[in-house]
Amino acid sequence: MRDFDETNITDAVVESFSGTPDPRLRQVVTSLVHHLHDFIRDVDLTFDEWSTAIDFLTRTGHMCTGTRQEFILLSDVLGASMLVDAINHRMPGSATQTTVLGPFFVEDAPVYPLGADISGRMTGEPLFVTGSVHSEDGRPLAGAAIDVWHADDGGFYDVQQIEKLGGLAGRARFYADERGDFHFWSIVPKFYPIPDDGPVGQLLNATGRHPNRPAHVHFLIAAPGHETLVTHVFAADSEWLDSDAVFGVKNTLIAEFAHRPAGVAKDGQKAEQPYRHLDYHFGLKASAEGASSSGPRATIRLPA
Amino acid sequence: MRDFDETNITDAVVESFSGTPDPRLRQVVTSLVHHLHDFIRDVDLTFDEWSTAIDFLTRTGHMCTGTRQEFILLSDVLGASMLVDAINHRMPGSATQTTVLGPFFVEDAPVYPLGADISGRMTGEPLFVTGSVHSEDGRPLAGAAIDVWHADDGGFYDVQQIEKLGGLAGRARFYADERGDFHFWSIVPKFYPIPDDGPVGQLLNATGRHPNRPAHVHFLIAAPGHETLVTHVFAADSEWLDSDAVFGVKNTLIAEFAHRPAGVAKDGQKAEQPYRHLDYHFGLKASAEGASSSGPRATIRLPA
Repeated sequence: MRDFDETNITDAVVESFSGTPDPRLRQVVTSLVHHLHDFIRDVDLTFDEWSTAIDFLTRTGHMCTGTRQEFILLSDVLGASMLVDAINHRMPGSATQTTVLGPFFVEDAPVYPLGADISGRMTGEPLFVTGSVHSEDGRPLAGAAIDVWHADDGGFYDVQQIEKLGGLAGRARFYADERGDFHFWSIVPKFYPIPDDGPVGQLLNATGRHPNRPAHVHFLIAAPGHETLVTHVFAADSEWLDSDAVFGVKNTLIAEFAHRPAGVAKDGQKAEQPYRHLDYHFGLKASAEGASSSGPRATIRLPA
Repeated sequence: MRDFDETNITDAVVESFSGTPDPRLRQVVTSLVHHLHDFIRDVDLTFDEWSTAIDFLTRTGHMCTGTRQEFILLSDVLGASMLVDAINHRMPGSATQTTVLGPFFVEDAPVYPLGADISGRMTGEPLFVTGSVHSEDGRPLAGAAIDVWHADDGGFYDVQQIEKLGGLAGRARFYADERGDFHFWSIVPKFYPIPDDGPVGQLLNATGRHPNRPAHVHFLIAAPGHETLVTHVFAADSEWLDSDAVFGVKNTLIAEFAHRPAGVAKDGQKAEQPYRHLDYHFGLKASAEGASSSGPRATIRLPA
């Protein structure tokens, strides 16, 4: 193989991967080479642009730490994350719709008892959350593991301000009770910009895009025999519902964060001040036989 | 914009970039989104594979340092670097053919006088290099700046072993004399594997590809009014000429590294032992009017 030009190099590169032992890996790299080369040919990429791309990817990599995942942000703002989500959740039936994991999920978040207030030192309007977890056929999923995480009233997650907060906050794992129900207290999250002080923020800025996501609470819900559900519930009164920077909004995931006066809440706890109430019921799809994956893997692992 | 699925998300993402002020950037990101999404759809990318890709890119970024450019290696083994090179060097006429810059170019290499031995503490069979630089019409390019760099007899560059060598070696800048001629001494480089202890090496290993490049000497030659030439000269007797890991070999760039007995070389210097002789003549293309780029930018900047 010698003397490659733009007409024959793609076939040569594909041929170089023809000995890949794993057929699926061979299929993926072959397709990647075709699409990458077609992109370069389509735009007649210059050396300066190639250098800019190398530099952009390098800076994106250097921005990644244990608590910052710039490549997930890049995948999110290019719509790639939502596309992968869509491809892997065709025909959801009556199950709750899915959306992106985002870059702020933390594995092994602290377990709280039902009814706990998980806001820690986060500030914001009190939020009372109630809900349930059931299978597509309506059967309650007792003991379902419910990971929840959300931003504060400034639009920041705990992992973005962990020293100020003295630890995790606005984040917990609960287990649904025998009726599949759960409830907890926290604070109302605000809409927020995705972290835009890195290369992805520069891309958004250069392309005239805003970095904002409408206010939402993340849920990751797992139950035996069911696909793990990764989704958000968006606040119906939030800004940016129609131009989410990561393309994650679905109408079925928008819910009222209803205004309630001070007084005794549904769980018997006394609210000293007015609060908001979110009530949402989650349906989980039964696992496919032999399914190898049920959702995106986590990416933040905090030091012990 | 809400409720995206695999059929409508690509248009939505393209639309989000429609306000990009710079038309070229808008063109590039639009094409990128189309090809990235088509790739994901073509292979029906799973969550596990998406996570693997995020992790691969992150590790590739973390591998990049001042003297290691893993994203260039990735571009090289996917044939993207040679494709960009081919697109930007159509119809070379009688000019010397180009090939990849590679990851080991160093900006501001030390200037040596013609005839110098640049091998430093590198070991290997002595190599005498003679050549000339001329324009496409045969006019000698007096004073042309000639950057040269190559590996040692173990296949390693100076920047991969800088402490052992006590500094740069097998690397220099020369200026051609009034006839456009140059000559210098060094040692014969060996074929070598591209650095394969990182993610790119893992990719090659998983796909059954070897990491080797045939033995070569890099040249980057600049002269006023001409496009900067980025190329290699490959040793005709090297292994791997037909399966270069980065697809860079062209027949016109292969030359004899001729065996010579000990004695007085062409430049009057006495060789105490047998040596090899490479003689190569470079033709530079006249610059296009208003050309914005003449070759890939450098990526290694050593600390002062």
